[in-house]
Amino acid sequence: METLEAIKMRASLKMRISTRQVEPEKIVEILDAARLAPSARNFQPWRFIVLNDRERIKTLIKGAFSEGNLVFSEAPVLIVACANPSDDVVRDGKEYYLHDVGMAVENMLLAATELGLVTHPATGLNEKGESELKRILGIPDEVRFVVATPVAYPAEGSYEEAAQERLSERTRKDLKELVYLNAWGKPF
Amino acid sequence: METLEAIKMRASLKMRISTRQVEPEKIVEILDAARLAPSARNFQPWRFIVLNDRERIKTLIKGAFSEGNLVFSEAPVLIVACANPSDDVVRDGKEYYLHDVGMAVENMLLAATELGLVTHPATGLNEKGESELKRILGIPDEVRFVVATPVAYPAEGSYEEAAQERLSERTRKDLKELVYLNAWGKPF
Repeated sequence: METLEAIKMRASLKMRISTRQVEPEKIVEILDAARLAPSARNFQPWRFIVLNDRERIKTLIKGAFSEGNLVFSEAPVLIVACANPSDDVVRDGKEYYLHDVGMAVENMLLAATELGLVTHPATGLNEKGESELKRILGIPDEVRFVVATPVAYPAEGSYEEAAQERLSERTRKDLKELVYLNAWGKPF
Repeated sequence: METLEAIKMRASLKMRISTRQVEPEKIVEILDAARLAPSARNFQPWRFIVLNDRERIKTLIKGAFSEGNLVFSEAPVLIVACANPSDDVVRDGKEYYLHDVGMAVENMLLAATELGLVTHPATGLNEKGESELKRILGIPDEVRFVVATPVAYPAEGSYEEAAQERLSERTRKDLKELVYLNAWGKPF
């Protein structure tokens, strides 16, 4: 799939997850894509925990995620992205580990799309918050949870078929609401 | 270009910038790719200022960026990504606008790579910091600068030729340093 096509076809599809196993080599391809993202001063702050054990995935999702994400329990693989903020730059109070992990995560989502796999980046945890997720996964205190995504085959049909309905309902702001020319507020 | 190929070929290439004009329709394709990134609760916090005026680009780069980025002055187009933190979620103190802008920026970088254009995301400003960049561009106080990238044709040859040397020198951590299986610290 061409890059621009993958960017257009990527959608968050937690309602389309199949329980079917995903080949480990595809997971490696997805992680390798993440690894190749740029980062401030090439610090590469991202760390990933791959869960491929169904009981462990269920324990984590039920123990730490918000109700809207309980459907992730069905996924054969869950990837949790996290980082130590001190592994990246902080400029004017902005913690760039969040930005750099975001770039790596987008690479993962696009690689999965190209491989015909569905994803759904989620940041919403339950009322126990990040501490419970970190307790279950043994993540050190200084490391922050950033985002998690299931990686799965679509429940029915191809990726394109699985994404069609959601893409048809997609709501995105127009470029004219998002882009200025040469100065803030000037129409593009 | 296939997505995984674009992810592998993307490199930060500020030393390979041509002054040649870039077609406005290519800039629109790059911005459209950014717009299609996911974001927490679909809040789409990203805003972009496109600079396509050489004098204005020079004024901004010389006035606000660190010495290592002065070469951006040669670019025909500079895209500045910014966001208002209150346009996105904050969870456990983590300001997700940085993460979500990161996902949009990676889409831009990959779209540019597919279109044969060089980019170089940069966060490094001079000692005057973000306030001077915001003053020059008229960015409101509550909006934060996140990252800027030139968008340019390569100074010589194709994108692939321009990227070859830098890709051959690429240093990235191995997956075994970055990925754990089922719990923090467990080898993948």
